[in-house]
Amino acid sequence: MKAREILSAIKAGRPVAGDCRRPDVEPLPGIPAYRLTTAASRPDRTVLFFHGGGSTGGSTFDSLDLCARIADAAEAEIISVEYRLAPAHPFPAAVEDALFAYRHLLTSGYVPERVVPAGLSAGGTLVVSMLLAARDAGLPMPAAGVCLSPAVDMLFLGDSVIFNQETDWLEPKTLAAMRDAYLPDRDPTDPLASPLYADLAGLPPLLVQAGGGEVLIDGIEAFVSAARLQGVPVAFDCVEGMFHCWQVFAAVLPEGAAAVERVGAFIRRHVPDEG
Amino acid sequence: MKAREILSAIKAGRPVAGDCRRPDVEPLPGIPAYRLTTAASRPDRTVLFFHGGGSTGGSTFDSLDLCARIADAAEAEIISVEYRLAPAHPFPAAVEDALFAYRHLLTSGYVPERVVPAGLSAGGTLVVSMLLAARDAGLPMPAAGVCLSPAVDMLFLGDSVIFNQETDWLEPKTLAAMRDAYLPDRDPTDPLASPLYADLAGLPPLLVQAGGGEVLIDGIEAFVSAARLQGVPVAFDCVEGMFHCWQVFAAVLPEGAAAVERVGAFIRRHVPDEG
Repeated sequence: MKAREILSAIKAGRPVAGDCRRPDVEPLPGIPAYRLTTAASRPDRTVLFFHGGGSTGGSTFDSLDLCARIADAAEAEIISVEYRLAPAHPFPAAVEDALFAYRHLLTSGYVPERVVPAGLSAGGTLVVSMLLAARDAGLPMPAAGVCLSPAVDMLFLGDSVIFNQETDWLEPKTLAAMRDAYLPDRDPTDPLASPLYADLAGLPPLLVQAGGGEVLIDGIEAFVSAARLQGVPVAFDCVEGMFHCWQVFAAVLPEGAAAVERVGAFIRRHVPDEG
Repeated sequence: MKAREILSAIKAGRPVAGDCRRPDVEPLPGIPAYRLTTAASRPDRTVLFFHGGGSTGGSTFDSLDLCARIADAAEAEIISVEYRLAPAHPFPAAVEDALFAYRHLLTSGYVPERVVPAGLSAGGTLVVSMLLAARDAGLPMPAAGVCLSPAVDMLFLGDSVIFNQETDWLEPKTLAAMRDAYLPDRDPTDPLASPLYADLAGLPPLLVQAGGGEVLIDGIEAFVSAARLQGVPVAFDCVEGMFHCWQVFAAVLPEGAAAVERVGAFIRRHVPDEG
């Protein structure tokens, strides 16, 4: 671009072509990602993290506090994937990126038994989608998976979408808009977009955390039941009165901090200390 | 906080208490900071980076692309300091944080001859303020310093503030508002806030990059003259027609990419490859 074009864009408040962020500094070549460690992180325990944002927004940065807390609680390194977002990149781009990230870890020498994918909201959905895609591709399963307030049903069935509006901040119209951006031409019951409708056999142990006050809670409960019926060991951690992604507020919300501690304990249990 | 207070804040669009970001994951205990490396980074060459944002805003994230490019060009690791911001933390909080960060590197075993502080806009100012504070505290000087479009004069003297408004996006009223937030009760000619008025003797070699079309160019030129008169070796890299912080657009602006290459060459020259 020419300097004067950029200057005009800045003065007009328009984004400058191509957004100049470049988070692809490490650790996954070919896909933007961040590695995040704290003093508590062990190099031999890895959380492959997927941020939230309705498949249309969000970034690692929004989840930085949560990532650091999970790193502390799980004593793990975090690799957070900046998967592609809708509407520029609708389904299944994000699933492809998630699978690419997992596959890359394995080909880089990461041991699947020492890796736990974890995600928040749409990132929690992506954890399940990625596990399904990895299973279907014949890849070994990771030690476990963690889904925090996942959106498991793009039909958003269940009374909670209506009746929990008072106790949640997520609005049904936002859900519908995100779904329409993510799945413009696709069946909302596609199992890789709505794992509620998936064949879940063969998935590793899952921790599903959700708030009892979420608009999405009915779908999440249905998913937990479906997974258990298909033989997936699911720890369902439903916290009364909590709203969508309350864990993000762990810094100021005791229930959030407690939930993250349980995430850490789950991950440590499935990826035990070595040596 | 109680969950319902947080829920009310979210629904009202208010920030939730205390901003839950927690970038203090590494590498400076007691002060938020990020370490950023690329495949080109050498562990024995460190850029201590200070982002821009008028002392009242900005973050590492805004400069992520630039940091990655500097890491590539300088073949260095970047440690980016999330110094405190006005108005919550007016001058000299940011200078204290910058000095703390530099001192911490030294006490952690970093060799001053292998460290180069670098900053953009208000962060470029902070580089000089930090060097002055470090000198006055008796600390050894780093190998060099890099100031990209620094704001060196809180009086904003010089015709360019008037005559370059067409060729820059930075507005005089914004400059004044930022200055008033940063220096509510202080003399704008305090040398730690306005290094144009400082005794600069004893500072290490500096690279000062500025755009010929910047509103701040007159002050920057005056600073370069003052520094040279006081014996500081200054490489002044003024690029005709460029606006404030054009380096940020290196991804799409050839002059930006070229400027970052020169930053890298300067840093590599002052911190030569070892072994």
